[in-house]
Amino acid sequence: MRIALEQIDPIVGDIAGNELLITNSIADARAAGAALVCLPELALTGYPPEDLLLKAHVLSDVADALERIAAEAVDIVAIVGYPEHDGAVYNSAAVLADGRIAGSYRKNHLPNYGVFDEHRYFKAGSGGAVIKINGSVIGLSICEDIWSPGPPESDEAAAGAGLIVNLSASPYQAGKGTAREQMLSARALESGAAVAFCGQVGGQDELVFDGHSLVVGGDGEILARAPQFEQWLLTCEVPLAEREFDAEAGPAVELIGSFSTNPPSDDTSLDHLIASVASDDDAVYAALVLGTRDYTDKNGFERVVLGLSGGVDSALVACIACDALGPGRVTCVTMPSQYSSEGTYSDALALADALGVELLELPIGGLMEGYETLLAAPFEGHAPDLTEENLQARIRGNLLMALSNKFGWLVLTTGNKSEMAVGYSTLYGDSAGGFAVIKDLPKTLVYRLCEIRNARSDSPIPDSVLTRPPSAELRPDQADQDSLPPYDVLDPLLEGYVERDLGAEQLIAEGFDPETVAKVIALVDRAEYKRRQQPPGIKVTAKAFGRDRRLPITNRYKG
Amino acid sequence: MRIALEQIDPIVGDIAGNELLITNSIADARAAGAALVCLPELALTGYPPEDLLLKAHVLSDVADALERIAAEAVDIVAIVGYPEHDGAVYNSAAVLADGRIAGSYRKNHLPNYGVFDEHRYFKAGSGGAVIKINGSVIGLSICEDIWSPGPPESDEAAAGAGLIVNLSASPYQAGKGTAREQMLSARALESGAAVAFCGQVGGQDELVFDGHSLVVGGDGEILARAPQFEQWLLTCEVPLAEREFDAEAGPAVELIGSFSTNPPSDDTSLDHLIASVASDDDAVYAALVLGTRDYTDKNGFERVVLGLSGGVDSALVACIACDALGPGRVTCVTMPSQYSSEGTYSDALALADALGVELLELPIGGLMEGYETLLAAPFEGHAPDLTEENLQARIRGNLLMALSNKFGWLVLTTGNKSEMAVGYSTLYGDSAGGFAVIKDLPKTLVYRLCEIRNARSDSPIPDSVLTRPPSAELRPDQADQDSLPPYDVLDPLLEGYVERDLGAEQLIAEGFDPETVAKVIALVDRAEYKRRQQPPGIKVTAKAFGRDRRLPITNRYKG
Repeated sequence: MRIALEQIDPIVGDIAGNELLITNSIADARAAGAALVCLPELALTGYPPEDLLLKAHVLSDVADALERIAAEAVDIVAIVGYPEHDGAVYNSAAVLADGRIAGSYRKNHLPNYGVFDEHRYFKAGSGGAVIKINGSVIGLSICEDIWSPGPPESDEAAAGAGLIVNLSASPYQAGKGTAREQMLSARALESGAAVAFCGQVGGQDELVFDGHSLVVGGDGEILARAPQFEQWLLTCEVPLAEREFDAEAGPAVELIGSFSTNPPSDDTSLDHLIASVASDDDAVYAALVLGTRDYTDKNGFERVVLGLSGGVDSALVACIACDALGPGRVTCVTMPSQYSSEGTYSDALALADALGVELLELPIGGLMEGYETLLAAPFEGHAPDLTEENLQARIRGNLLMALSNKFGWLVLTTGNKSEMAVGYSTLYGDSAGGFAVIKDLPKTLVYRLCEIRNARSDSPIPDSVLTRPPSAELRPDQADQDSLPPYDVLDPLLEGYVERDLGAEQLIAEGFDPETVAKVIALVDRAEYKRRQQPPGIKVTAKAFGRDRRLPITNRYKG
Repeated sequence: MRIALEQIDPIVGDIAGNELLITNSIADARAAGAALVCLPELALTGYPPEDLLLKAHVLSDVADALERIAAEAVDIVAIVGYPEHDGAVYNSAAVLADGRIAGSYRKNHLPNYGVFDEHRYFKAGSGGAVIKINGSVIGLSICEDIWSPGPPESDEAAAGAGLIVNLSASPYQAGKGTAREQMLSARALESGAAVAFCGQVGGQDELVFDGHSLVVGGDGEILARAPQFEQWLLTCEVPLAEREFDAEAGPAVELIGSFSTNPPSDDTSLDHLIASVASDDDAVYAALVLGTRDYTDKNGFERVVLGLSGGVDSALVACIACDALGPGRVTCVTMPSQYSSEGTYSDALALADALGVELLELPIGGLMEGYETLLAAPFEGHAPDLTEENLQARIRGNLLMALSNKFGWLVLTTGNKSEMAVGYSTLYGDSAGGFAVIKDLPKTLVYRLCEIRNARSDSPIPDSVLTRPPSAELRPDQADQDSLPPYDVLDPLLEGYVERDLGAEQLIAEGFDPETVAKVIALVDRAEYKRRQQPPGIKVTAKAFGRDRRLPITNRYKG
């Protein structure tokens, strides 16, 4: 049987736009000779729709759109993810066939960890569902349903399904592609049924979905794989025997209906694409590019602006912005102070030149003097300290925001995860902006991605940016490593504390220096209030700051 | 039977400190002759501990502390809320008696709506639990368990419980006290069992808990009520017959144990306090005072600072800060510009004088000129607009943050919910700070609370503050009502859209002008990115911006 998996990039809340994407997908799949086309989880609203699901009028609009889509499902069966309102709300897969809604499968396993809050919105379905197409039995499942062995898909296979389809919206994180393929192969091998995984693609606020639609044969081998990080219609011929639905073997499984479609054409040119899989770091770069492009475009910004310091973080963000939007949609601003070195200044110029982006120059010295004069009276008798450093960062934040306000540009911030973790950033200063592109990148990964980008073409980032010791340049001769452990020590320690939730004792047992552990934990805990006011940014690790990690600000735990 | 309900104000994560509060409570209750003492839900961690519960070492520290507390439960039975780690994690009530942990009841109903995320952390218990004390059967329940009729408390009553205790951490919102009392009376009347409700008190980030511990007789009448918004040990003599535990009538109910305590003293002086209940608006004021005090003190700030504009919002925040902390811990700053009127300036001075707070004056005109000069080149050919208004607000934000950085003061912001809803505030400007005291107060409620505060003593807020048309004073002759509907129209409309999740059609059906509805909905939706970067503030309505309302920023829904 020829099937089609359409990994679309819906826009959350754009029900009319998503409806069009879906009806176009159905038409394209039919034209490709597919008997069955699958769309991702909650394709009609986009994922995650969050509290839009609490609005009755949204659910009603969805129901109307689904009726219209069903009318297009002729000579093909379409499985479409949508929120189903039937007393309670379910995360459902509609079966559209013969121009009508034939029924729905309701997601059994609702994730409520990490970035997921599905118990907030949905009631869980109970039991599996299958359909018959041209005599073959096909089981339905949604995302989380398939991540563990067992029902519903094991019941569906027992009831005769030779193919399990899975509609998904599976947020990307580094290494997830490999984990996902291993999981899908394991499911196929357990049941002997083929598995067709249809994933959403695109950026949605802090999440990027990598698509990565796949067909795995009953022997666990990959039959087809769509490229990650782009919209794609993946078609595949799946060998499927005719079988009866066995209600006794699968008592918890409902048969939604039996359908005939026109037999698929004998088009032997059908491309069983098995796209190659990018390395982890390459995939992270691609995720950042897609996340930045989608946040910018879906929110209607023509142009982005960022401050270029001559350091490695802003250099990487500038490259990502150019790769996402083209250099014609990027403005960089250099805002030198008396503490800026000649080296970082000329590096900023060289990078902007290499990327071909507009560069504005706004020196901040005069404004800094203005603040110092005004604050001289209340600050009398107090030596300069972090206050003055923060003021410089805030002047720069104000200037970028003024450009944003005047011209409607989106400000990209350039802070990385290591900084965000220990609070080495200025609230309303360098963290002021609309989108924090690399907020989930540990500093060591920032360096690796710069190397990757330079290796790709043109080497836009000057070598000196990569070799100079990192510094905020907010006072004379400042260097990050004056007050922090080296990043190749700090980053693994942060990974243990933040991503793996280890405590001090456990970290020390892993070999970290006790004093460093105590210092870093205290810094991370104390910076929670800062993180709470950060702009959104793209999750690429197992646990990003944001909805992934919900710690109280008022928190006296000192483990 | 004499019982004691200790409404404590724990600090989240302060396990050692909370342990001390609990052991002191046990000792005080025993001294008061109580056979049974109840502490609130998750008393040992404070509520809500959020992702602290994902850390194994936190759960282990809790288990150790509970062992130590149990040793103090001698001659009295103590019911203490804690997270129980037994394979899964449960939201449990430990029964401490005879110096040991006799067992635990596990919360059956886990809320996962509004501000609650309990499915993220806990596995639900199944079935009720009772204990026997001196021959009487007492049922156990935790918070949400009792908000609906039915099990576990109906099963516990059927099994013989003459008293149901409920450990709670029930976040305050306006009107919740009345709703809670009606609910508890209904439960008592349904089962004929008395109900003892023990609530947490205190502020925790965006939530305030009002305590409001209560004992309701089996006839639904209130036997005792603690005051809201303060720590309190409420004691009460509850008429309880000796009864047998009937395992057949309550098959889903476990008997944890039977205990004897020393008979309560015949101290007839025992005060059956029935504290009066404040009016809704008075309670909101009290909630804001407690929330501000607890956020400030629990986070270790000696002093707060806020900008005083001469407007009604900052006037109210100044009053709340003084009532929470005393005027000696409050600094106000007036930051006049060329657009500030003589009236607001002198009102700010009069208010500061009436409250007895320190007042700094930092005029912003020079800095504004500095920004205009620096930005003259990039802004050439563009007329002044919101950009310049935002710059003024951001200069003020920078100055307050500089004071905060230099002296370690907490910046209180003064924006109200109506502004926050429609986005009439400047990100990194007037919204820059650590705690947004009145962010959940519609503007009309701000006025009502000013009247309440003025009526209470000294009338610190000048009449002209209350009668002058509201203005941001960021350009000549600006008034809020130039671009917004009057607040007595706007606020009910926002309540419908934000708190009741109504769509445009429904709002128009309620009588709102269609054009106003369209305009306001568009403003609210467009401001989501601003709200995401706001400091935390105190929830007092049914749905506050924050964890209560989780909408995507990227959202094309236009219903």
